[in-house]
Amino acid sequence: MGSTFGQLFRITTFGESHGGGIGVVIDGCPPKIDISEADIQRELDRRRPGQSKITTRRKEEDRCEILSGVFEGKTLGTPIAILVRNKDARPEDYVDLAKKFRPSHADFTYEAKYGIRNWQGGGRASARETIGRVAAGAVARKVLGALYAKIDIVAYVAQIAEVMATVDKSKVKVRDIDANIVRCPDAVAAKRMISLIEKTREAGDSLGGVIECVARNAPAGLGEPVFDKLEADLAKAMLSLPATKGFEIGSGFSATRMRGSEHNDAFEMRRGRVRTSTNYSGGIQGGISNGEEIYFRVAFKPTATIAREQKTVTQSHDETELAARGRHDPCVLPRAVPMVEAMAALVLCDHALRQRAINRNA
Amino acid sequence: MGSTFGQLFRITTFGESHGGGIGVVIDGCPPKIDISEADIQRELDRRRPGQSKITTRRKEEDRCEILSGVFEGKTLGTPIAILVRNKDARPEDYVDLAKKFRPSHADFTYEAKYGIRNWQGGGRASARETIGRVAAGAVARKVLGALYAKIDIVAYVAQIAEVMATVDKSKVKVRDIDANIVRCPDAVAAKRMISLIEKTREAGDSLGGVIECVARNAPAGLGEPVFDKLEADLAKAMLSLPATKGFEIGSGFSATRMRGSEHNDAFEMRRGRVRTSTNYSGGIQGGISNGEEIYFRVAFKPTATIAREQKTVTQSHDETELAARGRHDPCVLPRAVPMVEAMAALVLCDHALRQRAINRNA
Amino acid sequence: MGSTFGQLFRITTFGESHGGGIGVVIDGCPPKIDISEADIQRELDRRRPGQSKITTRRKEEDRCEILSGVFEGKTLGTPIAILVRNKDARPEDYVDLAKKFRPSHADFTYEAKYGIRNWQGGGRASARETIGRVAAGAVARKVLGALYAKIDIVAYVAQIAEVMATVDKSKVKVRDIDANIVRCPDAVAAKRMISLIEKTREAGDSLGGVIECVARNAPAGLGEPVFDKLEADLAKAMLSLPATKGFEIGSGFSATRMRGSEHNDAFEMRRGRVRTSTNYSGGIQGGISNGEEIYFRVAFKPTATIAREQKTVTQSHDETELAARGRHDPCVLPRAVPMVEAMAALVLCDHALRQRAINRNA
Amino acid sequence: MGSTFGQLFRITTFGESHGGGIGVVIDGCPPKIDISEADIQRELDRRRPGQSKITTRRKEEDRCEILSGVFEGKTLGTPIAILVRNKDARPEDYVDLAKKFRPSHADFTYEAKYGIRNWQGGGRASARETIGRVAAGAVARKVLGALYAKIDIVAYVAQIAEVMATVDKSKVKVRDIDANIVRCPDAVAAKRMISLIEKTREAGDSLGGVIECVARNAPAGLGEPVFDKLEADLAKAMLSLPATKGFEIGSGFSATRMRGSEHNDAFEMRRGRVRTSTNYSGGIQGGISNGEEIYFRVAFKPTATIAREQKTVTQSHDETELAARGRHDPCVLPRAVPMVEAMAALVLCDHALRQRAINRNA
Repeated sequence: MGSTFGQLFRITTFGESHGGGIGVVIDGCPPKIDISEADIQRELDRRRPGQSKITTRRKEEDRCEILSGVFEGKTLGTPIAILVRNKDARPEDYVDLAKKFRPSHADFTYEAKYGIRNWQGGGRASARETIGRVAAGAVARKVLGALYAKIDIVAYVAQIAEVMATVDKSKVKVRDIDANIVRCPDAVAAKRMISLIEKTREAGDSLGGVIECVARNAPAGLGEPVFDKLEADLAKAMLSLPATKGFEIGSGFSATRMRGSEHNDAFEMRRGRVRTSTNYSGGIQGGISNGEEIYFRVAFKPTATIAREQKTVTQSHDETELAARGRHDPCVLPRAVPMVEAMAALVLCDHALRQRAINRNA
Repeated sequence: MGSTFGQLFRITTFGESHGGGIGVVIDGCPPKIDISEADIQRELDRRRPGQSKITTRRKEEDRCEILSGVFEGKTLGTPIAILVRNKDARPEDYVDLAKKFRPSHADFTYEAKYGIRNWQGGGRASARETIGRVAAGAVARKVLGALYAKIDIVAYVAQIAEVMATVDKSKVKVRDIDANIVRCPDAVAAKRMISLIEKTREAGDSLGGVIECVARNAPAGLGEPVFDKLEADLAKAMLSLPATKGFEIGSGFSATRMRGSEHNDAFEMRRGRVRTSTNYSGGIQGGISNGEEIYFRVAFKPTATIAREQKTVTQSHDETELAARGRHDPCVLPRAVPMVEAMAALVLCDHALRQRAINRNA
Repeated sequence: MGSTFGQLFRITTFGESHGGGIGVVIDGCPPKIDISEADIQRELDRRRPGQSKITTRRKEEDRCEILSGVFEGKTLGTPIAILVRNKDARPEDYVDLAKKFRPSHADFTYEAKYGIRNWQGGGRASARETIGRVAAGAVARKVLGALYAKIDIVAYVAQIAEVMATVDKSKVKVRDIDANIVRCPDAVAAKRMISLIEKTREAGDSLGGVIECVARNAPAGLGEPVFDKLEADLAKAMLSLPATKGFEIGSGFSATRMRGSEHNDAFEMRRGRVRTSTNYSGGIQGGISNGEEIYFRVAFKPTATIAREQKTVTQSHDETELAARGRHDPCVLPRAVPMVEAMAALVLCDHALRQRAINRNA
Repeated sequence: MGSTFGQLFRITTFGESHGGGIGVVIDGCPPKIDISEADIQRELDRRRPGQSKITTRRKEEDRCEILSGVFEGKTLGTPIAILVRNKDARPEDYVDLAKKFRPSHADFTYEAKYGIRNWQGGGRASARETIGRVAAGAVARKVLGALYAKIDIVAYVAQIAEVMATVDKSKVKVRDIDANIVRCPDAVAAKRMISLIEKTREAGDSLGGVIECVARNAPAGLGEPVFDKLEADLAKAMLSLPATKGFEIGSGFSATRMRGSEHNDAFEMRRGRVRTSTNYSGGIQGGISNGEEIYFRVAFKPTATIAREQKTVTQSHDETELAARGRHDPCVLPRAVPMVEAMAALVLCDHALRQRAINRNA
């Protein structure tokens, strides 16, 4: 009972990696928002496997179908159901997994929790599950665009293993990010990242890294203290993504070494608006957006599925070894960029509607 | 509309720093759990201001009263309301705040969101709000203890600014943590931390740091994919605490530099149980606990309230300066230790009940 | 885990008939709404025991205290906690109840559910629990008044046992209702009702009846299909009140004998607005208000507590007899009028905020 | 944002009468429950149009597909998505409806709420929406059967217009109900009902009536005071069904004329169990089931769509007339029987899981 996210713009995802399909139902979308399957497909294509040489070679077309909630190109205010059929199943790749727990995967814990699992390709714990999120995120973006004309949410790869990028988060554009297959807008770092990913795949190993995300031109006033603070909901959204290990808002862990006098964001007037001279807060103070850029960082662990032999145990509790067959991502980050953006859009959209409910001018 | 936390063990907090009082209503607590005001008071005393020379000198007694839901020392299964009266109000300390926005505080954002705020002492954004959480956390611990006899949740200060502690998280005990006023179980580091805090206060400045928390002997099976993953709910819980900037589960950001072959936790059999040989996962895989130690780290920024003059603007948008009067914590971490533990207990308790709902053997 | 009501204007009540107190936390109230303890007290006084010769003679002052969420007479947008202390406890009246289940009361079912109960005066199942609802309803009315200047919610006693009133629901005013102690605006029927209640009390028996409620000048557009239809939420609200047995919206059960051609409400234009020529729908079509009067009826059973001897069993499963001591209402309806109004206001207020979230013009 | 129902066994429905399809996502279903498409199809066939001469002649096959959450015939504990494709669209039947509001339908209110509507065949307000409920209800029944071996939920037509049936609710069986096309187990009354429905259809008119439902062998202890009382959730569930106008639990409105001494259900011991000698309570006391039969009645209005000319207005606010073309039910009750059962099963299943969460022996 954890497949629903959001209070007012509320999504419920469904689907395993194998079976009839993957999808999402969005309840609470405002009416009369323009949306088409093409709007959704664009984002799905960014998360699709097989899109480049550094992602998994599985070819999944992932065509979406809007089943309900849209009429003549506009949302009805009723639930929007979106379905993506599963294809390209190669169950023979997974036959080992019926009996052996993959290290650092969810096989063991699903078994512990439910006493049953769909062992084909990860089942519900597969990253395929994020299709529903990305589809819903595309709708959330359209709603946000209708509410705040200039809002803009972009995520990018900021680090792969030891390779760090230098990015001006205030200026980076989607086209800079999608300019290369690793989705890092620093072209020099991108090249090194791509080469590192290729080498690591050849070595039968995998890599992690950091994705940064920035939301520009979000209004002040979003976030619902004390539990549904904006950064709290963003943290939950990000840590609910597969393979994530950490979250930082604004200054993040670097704040722990600063003094208050250094970290505080002084207020000043700029062009008639209250602004801050620095933005260590990451655009959120007291759990509520202040109109500055909202930015955060998400840590991803190296992909758990690797080609090398690893020690593990069987379902019947014998020790054994396992080497992944099948096709997998040596590094999830390039494909995780649209997932991070989608979750950020979902959080902001939900909070925008929540704020409108209590504030006529929001 | 963000003051409720949890799905089944559901708490709703209320109260501003000034006004009638602060408290919490716990709905969904199982019946027949032993609980007394003393159980709750013990935890409240650990978060209380004025408990040592390195905390704020405000004296708040913070006596709790159980208003409902407990009969003859046992929970009834009905809502448990707990109230702590506000005292020691010194509104003259805050009179400046009616007109000026404190930098990196919630004054400006509350005004932006609600168009009104209780400017006395921070209102709802005051850390006093956490009284309700700590009180509810004390009840959650009792429930967890009734469900899992050996479960144990401890948090401690692991870092203050540049001072790092060395702690064996598998063995650390509450008495080691409460052995000193900074709540750091590494006695040498603790001494340096205390001295740094005192010096910083004298300089009119403030400090941040890191709190680590470990839950030992939690069962496998807790966590509800895909959105209510255990680490996702922990992340939200922690980022909802005042002054937090980051969260790491298990390996956290350090995972981003590791290879999969290094980071994966191999399964092995130990004493007839499936165990992992390492625990980079932090006790959670695929969003569900695996029976290993659950551990995480929370970043706190330096206290925003400092005695030094800072630039800011007034409510009527004039630039001005502000120096905090009143009494405040130069470093929130010692008092935040029970808050982190409370939020962790609330998350685990909620997920324990959720797991019981679908699994008769849980 | 059932003491929270509403999605956006969300109330959580707490308290047993005996213990520290009874109250409510309202989360999600819009900011800057004028509210005072006097506004709340006025409604509480209408539900208070001991207000007339036909209600219970228990004297409960039921003074409310706003603990939080209001500052200088205006709501802050933060949770509003309201507390009413318990007084006038006469536990000796209840000592029998520790061991015997009162027929048609909740003693047996609370024991079955929780394995424990506060047997003093009904505990959580006491009608005292409705104090929190009535207090919250007073706040909801203020919010509704701020949103829709002319909205008006009135309930009245329409029937006591065999005595039926004749009331023009489009014109009835609060002062007509509160003009007599039975809260029936038909003065002739009221007289007969009062006399019937007095006679029945003397006979050691009790009475039920019907309360009607009408909301006038509510806007079109409230209600959230398909589950949170306006009549569905009203039905839940009313059936959650103690002693209720039935609910009818608009034509109700009488619709079952009508033909479609007779029951359909034809649309017509009146003063430039789309109106219906009849209103069998009760102001709601397809789960959404249509701008006509919203009216409904609630059936109340005769009070379960009666002075006569009744057969029952003890907690240790011996058959026995029981006659209520203590002071009780021979008929709950006069005091239930403000409860029905409060629940109606809560439902409408919640749906008003929900509609605002998706519709800027709402 | 009202298409989700239930707290732990939580369903979200989607779909308009025209468009890609209709369906439901069930989140929170316990794992390892046997379920097949055939189990679901059986119930869908009972609500299907075109099943007999007294229902609409629309032929809809309504084949369901389980998209996720089931593996090798057992539930996984993950969301169960069920899809039924829309077919047999005859948009030409509806072309008038784009411009005219059907009396006592949801056309006007959807327009008022959302500013847009799918006018083809009723869109989201079509009774086709209940497909998702009935499908989910079939799953809920399987869960209930796994928890309580002897539980049994049956509904039947008790009244059509003036024709009343005589039914022994303690003994009635599904095969008696499905023995005739009107789903009334009193064969004599059934015959009169069928003939009345046929005559009324010929006259271009429509009929309402009452459905009764009984749940036998449900355990004591289900229901969550004070708002989520079992009868409150049943009332909401029933009033959320299309065309419903009233709800009675147990004695219902007839209680309003009884005296307490008559209405109270005396406790007695029978076969070692606490039982009641009468059951005016309808199996629920204080909002919690007491182990007796849970029974309730639901009022349905006559179908709004009739062949006769009716007065109405156009979307552009001109007065006009409208006669339904297309194929419609002259009386919804026969097809509403499985809907009532489904909603009852959903409520009981949700409360069963809620009770298990707090009570290990439940």
